[in-house]
Amino acid sequence: MASIEARLAELGVALPTPPAPVASYVPFTVAPAGDGRLAHVSGQVSIDASGGVKGKLGAPLTLEQGQAAARLCGLNLLAQLKAACDGDLDRLVRVLKLNGFVNVAPDFDPIPAVMNGCSDLMVDVFGDAGRHARSAVGVANLPLGFAVEVDGVFLIR
Amino acid sequence: MASIEARLAELGVALPTPPAPVASYVPFTVAPAGDGRLAHVSGQVSIDASGGVKGKLGAPLTLEQGQAAARLCGLNLLAQLKAACDGDLDRLVRVLKLNGFVNVAPDFDPIPAVMNGCSDLMVDVFGDAGRHARSAVGVANLPLGFAVEVDGVFLIR
Amino acid sequence: MASIEARLAELGVALPTPPAPVASYVPFTVAPAGDGRLAHVSGQVSIDASGGVKGKLGAPLTLEQGQAAARLCGLNLLAQLKAACDGDLDRLVRVLKLNGFVNVAPDFDPIPAVMNGCSDLMVDVFGDAGRHARSAVGVANLPLGFAVEVDGVFLIR
Repeated sequence: MASIEARLAELGVALPTPPAPVASYVPFTVAPAGDGRLAHVSGQVSIDASGGVKGKLGAPLTLEQGQAAARLCGLNLLAQLKAACDGDLDRLVRVLKLNGFVNVAPDFDPIPAVMNGCSDLMVDVFGDAGRHARSAVGVANLPLGFAVEVDGVFLIR
Repeated sequence: MASIEARLAELGVALPTPPAPVASYVPFTVAPAGDGRLAHVSGQVSIDASGGVKGKLGAPLTLEQGQAAARLCGLNLLAQLKAACDGDLDRLVRVLKLNGFVNVAPDFDPIPAVMNGCSDLMVDVFGDAGRHARSAVGVANLPLGFAVEVDGVFLIR
Repeated sequence: MASIEARLAELGVALPTPPAPVASYVPFTVAPAGDGRLAHVSGQVSIDASGGVKGKLGAPLTLEQGQAAARLCGLNLLAQLKAACDGDLDRLVRVLKLNGFVNVAPDFDPIPAVMNGCSDLMVDVFGDAGRHARSAVGVANLPLGFAVEVDGVFLIR
């Protein structure tokens, strides 16, 4: 078993089935970059098989619910990344950048703590290769009212 | 006639004149990337010669007005991309990533449907090379009150 | 003395000490790109040793306060970029892209003018190499209530 798959099993993490391409955009693109390749993964919302997490942080959602939502985004990113790697997550070289968008009531500002739900997952799964640059901002709304959306740039081989 | 120009004519699409650089930022930058080059195009708002589309989605703008606004952003992106390609859009290898920012009232959430106005244009013009990763989020306001802003990363040769 | 350091001295600009990595994310990542390297720098907020600039543009902050806040983000980006260049800012080839997020009251829209506080600094310091593609949007809130956040992609050697 490949090492990242073993790590996922150790963590008890089951990746969701990555959603199929919808409309005119696709879940990821891959471009050459030096020795490796640059994968841009589309913004993943806080959805799962049971519906996911919708609503605004601050009201009605708590920080803890926001962190769980950000982790869902991370799981969806991993599922798409795995597809970008033709099923082999050991081809991940580095998580280069994550952009986190948190659906907030205008007075909610512990936005980094929410985004840690996604960032911590990357490091749990990939170790140092999962340590990434990131941005985290609070937005007025997200697609279909989801609580968090995260996209990413990944270096893969 | 180059094939993408022929396709634009077939679609009845006339690209706007790309606005000249303003102040300290420029419409695009180009960097080496493997065999090709990576073009970062600045955020393009929903402006046209007649003024464009301003205001927030939900109130007062309808979904259809938002889609038309997103298409304007796409036309402006294409105009800048053409300049980045020294006038030859056939040098586009792939639309890698689009980031869509929609100016929303806080309860408006069909944000992906708005952004399709831009995404669909890319596929109409470029076919499979126009299929891109993307993010779409709802923001509190945009420059000069425009309804939509989209930036992009493109692989060109 | 390296030329960019001389230019910083000429401008009277003292770069802050770049903050150490916090939690699961890091201030920057570097990846190969053609002959050079691509540095993704994390979103930098409008913080400084005296606390920085917090609050929303429009109310209570003025445009001028917003521009000063954006310049602080630029100083923090430069400090992180210097670390990404192992201390030698002459290794900067080009500022490729800046993404500016401005914490706004919903009716505040001179967002480009705010972001110029950061963009102008890049050109003051790097000249033509500092001229960049950018996006600028108004968001509902930012980490810990800071007024501006800017992240960036840089080509370095």
